[in-house]
Amino acid sequence: MAAKTRWVYFFGAGKADGKSDQKALLGGKGAGLAEMTRIGLPVPPGFTITTEACAKTINKDGKWPVGLEKEIRANMKKLEKTAKKKFGDNKDPLMVSVRSGAAVSMPGMMETILNLGLNDQAVEGLAKASGSRRFAFDAYRRLIMMYGSTAMGVSRELFDEAFDEIKRTRTATRLGLDADGFINDTDMDADDLEACVERFKSIYEEGCGEPFPQDAFEQLKGSINAVFNSWTSEKAITYRRVEKITGLDGTGVNICQMVFGNMGDDCGTGVCFTRDPSSGENVYYGDLLINAQGEDVVAGVRTPIHLDELKKIMPEAYDQLEAVRVILEVHYKEMQDLEFTIERNTLYMLQCRTGKRSPGATFKIAVDQATSGIVPASLAKRLAKKKYLPKKYVSAASKPVITKEEAIQRIKGVDIERLFYPILDPDVPASELESRKMGAGINAVPGAAYGEICFSAEKAEERAGEGAKVVLVRHETSPEDVGGMSVATGILTAMGGKTSHAAVVARGWGKCCIVGCGGLKINYKQGTMTLGGQTLEEGDMLTLDGDSGNIFKGEIKTITPTAPPEYDTLMQWCDKIRTLRVRTNADTPEDSSRAVELGAEGIGLCRTEHMFFNPSEPERLISMREMILAENEEDRRLALDKLLPYQRKDFEGIFEAMDGKPVTVRLLDPPLHEFLPQEDNKQGVEEVVNALNKPIQDELNSVEYWDHNLRAKLSEKLVSAEQIIERVETLHESNPMLGHRGCRLCITYPEILEMQVRAIIEAAVNCTGRKIKVLPEIMIPLSIDSRELGILVDKVRETADGILKDRKSKLTYLVGTMIETPRAALTAEEMAEVAEFFSFGTNDLTQMTMGLSRDDAGRFLPDYVDQDKAGIFYADPFQSLDVNGVGRLVRHAVENGRATRPKIKLGICGEHGGDPDSIRFCHEVGLAYVSCSPLRVPIARLSAAQATIEEKSAKKAKPRAGVKKATKKVAKKAAKKTNAKKATKTKAKKKAKR
Amino acid sequence: MAAKTRWVYFFGAGKADGKSDQKALLGGKGAGLAEMTRIGLPVPPGFTITTEACAKTINKDGKWPVGLEKEIRANMKKLEKTAKKKFGDNKDPLMVSVRSGAAVSMPGMMETILNLGLNDQAVEGLAKASGSRRFAFDAYRRLIMMYGSTAMGVSRELFDEAFDEIKRTRTATRLGLDADGFINDTDMDADDLEACVERFKSIYEEGCGEPFPQDAFEQLKGSINAVFNSWTSEKAITYRRVEKITGLDGTGVNICQMVFGNMGDDCGTGVCFTRDPSSGENVYYGDLLINAQGEDVVAGVRTPIHLDELKKIMPEAYDQLEAVRVILEVHYKEMQDLEFTIERNTLYMLQCRTGKRSPGATFKIAVDQATSGIVPASLAKRLAKKKYLPKKYVSAASKPVITKEEAIQRIKGVDIERLFYPILDPDVPASELESRKMGAGINAVPGAAYGEICFSAEKAEERAGEGAKVVLVRHETSPEDVGGMSVATGILTAMGGKTSHAAVVARGWGKCCIVGCGGLKINYKQGTMTLGGQTLEEGDMLTLDGDSGNIFKGEIKTITPTAPPEYDTLMQWCDKIRTLRVRTNADTPEDSSRAVELGAEGIGLCRTEHMFFNPSEPERLISMREMILAENEEDRRLALDKLLPYQRKDFEGIFEAMDGKPVTVRLLDPPLHEFLPQEDNKQGVEEVVNALNKPIQDELNSVEYWDHNLRAKLSEKLVSAEQIIERVETLHESNPMLGHRGCRLCITYPEILEMQVRAIIEAAVNCTGRKIKVLPEIMIPLSIDSRELGILVDKVRETADGILKDRKSKLTYLVGTMIETPRAALTAEEMAEVAEFFSFGTNDLTQMTMGLSRDDAGRFLPDYVDQDKAGIFYADPFQSLDVNGVGRLVRHAVENGRATRPKIKLGICGEHGGDPDSIRFCHEVGLAYVSCSPLRVPIARLSAAQATIEEKSAKKAKPRAGVKKATKKVAKKAAKKTNAKKATKTKAKKKAKR
Repeated sequence: MAAKTRWVYFFGAGKADGKSDQKALLGGKGAGLAEMTRIGLPVPPGFTITTEACAKTINKDGKWPVGLEKEIRANMKKLEKTAKKKFGDNKDPLMVSVRSGAAVSMPGMMETILNLGLNDQAVEGLAKASGSRRFAFDAYRRLIMMYGSTAMGVSRELFDEAFDEIKRTRTATRLGLDADGFINDTDMDADDLEACVERFKSIYEEGCGEPFPQDAFEQLKGSINAVFNSWTSEKAITYRRVEKITGLDGTGVNICQMVFGNMGDDCGTGVCFTRDPSSGENVYYGDLLINAQGEDVVAGVRTPIHLDELKKIMPEAYDQLEAVRVILEVHYKEMQDLEFTIERNTLYMLQCRTGKRSPGATFKIAVDQATSGIVPASLAKRLAKKKYLPKKYVSAASKPVITKEEAIQRIKGVDIERLFYPILDPDVPASELESRKMGAGINAVPGAAYGEICFSAEKAEERAGEGAKVVLVRHETSPEDVGGMSVATGILTAMGGKTSHAAVVARGWGKCCIVGCGGLKINYKQGTMTLGGQTLEEGDMLTLDGDSGNIFKGEIKTITPTAPPEYDTLMQWCDKIRTLRVRTNADTPEDSSRAVELGAEGIGLCRTEHMFFNPSEPERLISMREMILAENEEDRRLALDKLLPYQRKDFEGIFEAMDGKPVTVRLLDPPLHEFLPQEDNKQGVEEVVNALNKPIQDELNSVEYWDHNLRAKLSEKLVSAEQIIERVETLHESNPMLGHRGCRLCITYPEILEMQVRAIIEAAVNCTGRKIKVLPEIMIPLSIDSRELGILVDKVRETADGILKDRKSKLTYLVGTMIETPRAALTAEEMAEVAEFFSFGTNDLTQMTMGLSRDDAGRFLPDYVDQDKAGIFYADPFQSLDVNGVGRLVRHAVENGRATRPKIKLGICGEHGGDPDSIRFCHEVGLAYVSCSPLRVPIARLSAAQATIEEKSAKKAKPRAGVKKATKKVAKKAAKKTNAKKATKTKAKKKAKR
Repeated sequence: MAAKTRWVYFFGAGKADGKSDQKALLGGKGAGLAEMTRIGLPVPPGFTITTEACAKTINKDGKWPVGLEKEIRANMKKLEKTAKKKFGDNKDPLMVSVRSGAAVSMPGMMETILNLGLNDQAVEGLAKASGSRRFAFDAYRRLIMMYGSTAMGVSRELFDEAFDEIKRTRTATRLGLDADGFINDTDMDADDLEACVERFKSIYEEGCGEPFPQDAFEQLKGSINAVFNSWTSEKAITYRRVEKITGLDGTGVNICQMVFGNMGDDCGTGVCFTRDPSSGENVYYGDLLINAQGEDVVAGVRTPIHLDELKKIMPEAYDQLEAVRVILEVHYKEMQDLEFTIERNTLYMLQCRTGKRSPGATFKIAVDQATSGIVPASLAKRLAKKKYLPKKYVSAASKPVITKEEAIQRIKGVDIERLFYPILDPDVPASELESRKMGAGINAVPGAAYGEICFSAEKAEERAGEGAKVVLVRHETSPEDVGGMSVATGILTAMGGKTSHAAVVARGWGKCCIVGCGGLKINYKQGTMTLGGQTLEEGDMLTLDGDSGNIFKGEIKTITPTAPPEYDTLMQWCDKIRTLRVRTNADTPEDSSRAVELGAEGIGLCRTEHMFFNPSEPERLISMREMILAENEEDRRLALDKLLPYQRKDFEGIFEAMDGKPVTVRLLDPPLHEFLPQEDNKQGVEEVVNALNKPIQDELNSVEYWDHNLRAKLSEKLVSAEQIIERVETLHESNPMLGHRGCRLCITYPEILEMQVRAIIEAAVNCTGRKIKVLPEIMIPLSIDSRELGILVDKVRETADGILKDRKSKLTYLVGTMIETPRAALTAEEMAEVAEFFSFGTNDLTQMTMGLSRDDAGRFLPDYVDQDKAGIFYADPFQSLDVNGVGRLVRHAVENGRATRPKIKLGICGEHGGDPDSIRFCHEVGLAYVSCSPLRVPIARLSAAQATIEEKSAKKAKPRAGVKKATKKVAKKAAKKTNAKKATKTKAKKKAKR
């Protein structure tokens, strides 16, 4: 077996064994070098040792696999032939570089070793051949230092100190300079550098216990092994763990013929982007250091020049670069980040990869690439004339390189997110972030925020009222905290997952939120929080980064990006392509307007319960509490009557904001005790007591003082705080998620349904009167049976039609249900008999299908998702729909609901409505719309378009397979995700045969 | 339409329009009279007015439907022809009785009116025709009294007072008796009764405002209307509501020619059973009152004679009765309860119905009927010779009338239950029960119990230790209360449903338990409970009736029935027939032995967690708490090591008790915080603190006093109560049912799994060493994904195989999973790849599928099940499997699990395993076994046999349809259950077309 495996891939002189799609085998760098060679870019010849060879070597405790050395030697011969120089030759030696390169860019791996192939004899040969003794010894001293420090582990500082000493003594003395002043490396002459070589050699020998190897192949072997070993260095392992990089077994090793940017002023080395990475402008963007080798650029001792200057200094080299830019963008269809060296006016490409860019540039580049060419036709022609640009690129150079669909496909959800949320100022040095970081939680809502720590909603409201920026820090949040949450710039909780109360509420507002910070301990009594061994007090500054989930001590500046016009262009393209509608989850006129601005086509979920927590009208919550604590229907109706005008007003505002777009209003859903004050909330309890007692107290006040009987009678009716606390306790539930909530409330208290329907319909009628078009869809939550649902649907229609009749008004409205219990999904064909629409409440559906409480899962779900631990799921199922489990129920309900009622309206309003993978699934099963929080609307628009494009291209690939093809594609994707399962499965299958 | 409906059904002279299967239309009594006439029994002729006529009349505000009067008159003519007398005739009038009779026996409806057709003239005619003036006037005074009080609402007391007065004045004076002494009705002579008639007529006129009607048809009409109206009397409505009788619209009315048991000493009236209803012996059993009419029997003024005496007094009448007995049992194949009248030595049957019987008699009668004849062949022949018994009955009379299968089909679960649980002494008068009743809760576990009220588990243990019988009364119970629960005779909780903690634990023990008693308020502080307006204190006596759910003040005697040998015979028949195996849920050797005695064939669910609560070894719980509170794996393993010997001991005991029968052991399932002391349980917290600190304290004690450093270091390690309370708080979950429990615990803490598997396997190896066969099945709870399950299955095998290797032992064991989350059921084809068996945990599966917390559902589920309220479900889904929802998942998992692993072992271990309807479903979907609490094992055996029989008879009915037929039958049954839905559905379907 091993003999057949190919370990080495050659590239050079326009041909390459490898290809760009072999990243897993060759590493990103190796695949890039092969590809660049193939497409005719000037790449120094060389070869790549595969990642498999690395993995094999590691597994064999450092022993190379059979055949590897042979292949390396054979390829080295090939390289010598291409380069027309010999490796280890003493006259005009072939020199090579060795670089690591895994499939994914990975800091912590071994860096470059240059100039391999020099020794005490060859350096003299190089001096002659190059005509520069200084250059030769400079190259040799660099080799010894790099090989010594990087491959053999000798302290780099020892070399640097020796180098400095020689500069300060020899060079300074020779030039008569102040030994403590600044002396340029270029001031050192050949002798200085020769002295360096001697010094470095003895440092090397001291450190390694043996002299610097004079055999070139030994140098090469040592360097390759150093790269192999760096794969399992602590730094690399940590990086992979932190970045959740899995499925890779080793790094590739790239051996290239050396090219020199440091042979004189017609030489140089540089880094550039084919477009401006911060503005996205279609201009060549980069820096170049004249007469320098790679590491000099990094060291930053000399100031590099901009490409514009290069144009003047080395016009030919610049033209070669321009041609490269065209070739790269035509070939890769993407903005590239490249490294190059100019050796005596000839350009050599050392690396290229897709370039990182700013949020705005992402859109500008995508739209530009889809609408205009790379360079004017005249320039392309001129470059072709000079033979720098192959002819076949000329016509492509001035045309768009991608289609609009490809532009859309390129954008990711995070690209949009980064446009709308504040981010930590990128100018803050990494080291500062590092030192300030206290810990991390689950990154529930992106964006960065800082503010004073407040441990209670009251405190947050108080301090915010005084103008302070506050961060609310809680164990977990409850609906009682909504006031404090709304004024905070960011929210941090110790408990909960991405769909906990804090996360859901914050997401609706697009407010930075970090949850499930396991290490966070809060001592409410003392007013302190402890995280990562540090303790902060209430009022101290704290910064949250919702993107990464990182938590920092003190204040770190944040900036908010602005969206370029190309963002709008691209989103319009999306809207034209997609078939899936995008609605929003919004509970207020403000959120509704915001969502419409962001492209929402309706409201898919208007939660009526949030309306009761409006902090500016506390009487809402008080009336709600009166309603809940009422002992009988009459008292309940009295309280509901007080709530009616508020709800009606809210609905009117929302209908007005949506102006004719459909609005799905969900009837009261949470368990009633969520509205009650906690037992220890004395103020809350007192408010309720006062509200409930007020009418009696008023009556008491009007009783004549002598009428003791009446007074006594009335006094008996007064409730006490103890009574209220007792009632709160009575309403306590063991598992409120599965308790008395949703439409169960309306089965028990139909008057709640009546009030809410009245508010909706009266608001609609009022709007209609003001010539505002209204399309209400009344949604019944948590239904589990068609008979239950039928009773409530009838009640909704009875109430609504009664009002319309009284008001002599006409209105088209729908009545439907959430499908959020497994039973509702399982009996969809029955549910569809009574429901005009289904809206999949995938949050609760996930909770019940998987038996996972989203509020509690934080304690164990991370293990399930962590691929290095159990690795059972590939994403948090509350974030990305569990297609294999919950998805089956959704699909079943869609198919069976449609079978009963072909025109049934189908949508999704769970948090998944804003998740790209989940949206793809929604498109595939044929939902009519997704609904998500306002700030995720653009992401949903994008994902919906991408899903359509994917489906179309799947259809094109096999036109006859039709829709089934798309289904298969998703299935395939799912299958791919479960690849890792195979090991377990195979093992299990054997057992299954018992 | 109305003209075509037939309102009246005639019977008489061996022919009848109606049939026994027309109970719904004719009422039970009407159908019985028709059937008895058909089969040749001597029934007085008459006719039945249908229940539809009643319903129509009620709907029309008392107006008879078109055609009813015409039909009545026509049938009356027919009756006159049959009876050869005329209704309303003055010479020899036809007299009739009017009786109500609904499809279901229903107290509170109108009673009988006899002797209709008499008036002032006819009474004289009757006197002449009968030859007894006394008889005629007795009949007339009865008519006036019954018609007046029953039909017209005149107070019965007025008649009784007048009757008494005449007795005390006229009769007593005439006979020279003491007016205040006891005077027999029979002492009254014709004149006395004539005086009565006069007095009654004036009472009637005073009460009704008009004279007693002299027109016979008017009397008939009035009586019929009185029956109609009694259907909507308050008493009848209440009865129907309380007994949950639905689907009936009215009562039938039976008009029969009068026969007279009061025409002399060759007359009489009686009630009897075809077999002894208390012992079940095959002897005629009944009483007869000579010279009396029906109501005299009820009044109980004279002592009736036993049938044995009748044999001597009226041998011919007795022979007629014997023949009737044969005919009835051959025809109805059941013991009958019958009413008859003997008029001048001729027998007339007035009513027959299946007779009620004692728990033991139920089995004796069924087995006797299936194994021996009714009477000896000689007797049958003799009766035939006398023409009392038609010839066709002779041979059947001495053969079994039913098959063994029919005997099995006849037995109901409650019949078995009544054999094993104590019941309230039937001799306690109903009035006493009435006066003692405080209220009612949900009848979670049957049986009756009394004892001192204890409000805490501690108090219960203390008082039980002192020899007292105690009833534990709690708001709800938690695992901490198990000790107190185990010593109580009965348990009462204010919260929870049939599958709450209290109910499940009590059911396992067969201990009387009433839960969800909404009206019950407990004041732990004051030590009082209040229910139904009465307050009791700790130590007061309380009686619970777990059958009805009723709660009584004070002590009411209970008795425990004994099972007759025929019970065992019948259960053996069941065992031969059934294909479904029956296992038990048992956690201790004692429960296991008990279950085996009751017929269990294995353990389907051994819950390992209950073992930690063994009150006689409190160190178990302490070690468990140490384990939970451990800060790291090392400490956790130390605590687990302490638990290992206990678990191993328990498993050994159980394996020994089961002796080779399979034992399914479920790994730890409940959330860990269930094991921790509540925050306010100071003693519990202290115990944990002491246990955790003990090793440190021991070390501290051995430190030299001068070694301050070591002392300080060790002291730092000591934990405080505050720390423990904080940890308990940290472990708190919002929805523990969906939280960190089940196999999630083993994903997080694999060492728990290791310890438990070690305990199981070591116990098994120990038993094997003692020549005890062991078949362990290790069950992983709450799995949601095949990868999760695969990880744990591998870990179980690794641990188990390691031990077996170390111990050089061989053992066949299975590893499987509970299917108790919807996702597990949905992905069954994947789960079956790693699981060797599935056990459906239908408790949790129901909770999650329906989104119903069983602990909280008590607040609203009753409305869902109550047919008079929402009526959404036909049974509590935690009691009887929700076939339409949860059942779909079970079926899906069975089919898909089998597709992957054809030989997969399938069972059910939820509470549903003991419910007959659910067992039928389990048989139908093809499970291998059901598992239930020990005391329900016999019921499960019975139900399993019944399911097989039903399936076979369905197959016979249509042999080609095969298995599908059985499926259809269950489907049909389900369809029947959902009949009530139709109204809603039809309405909805119309909407669906919009």
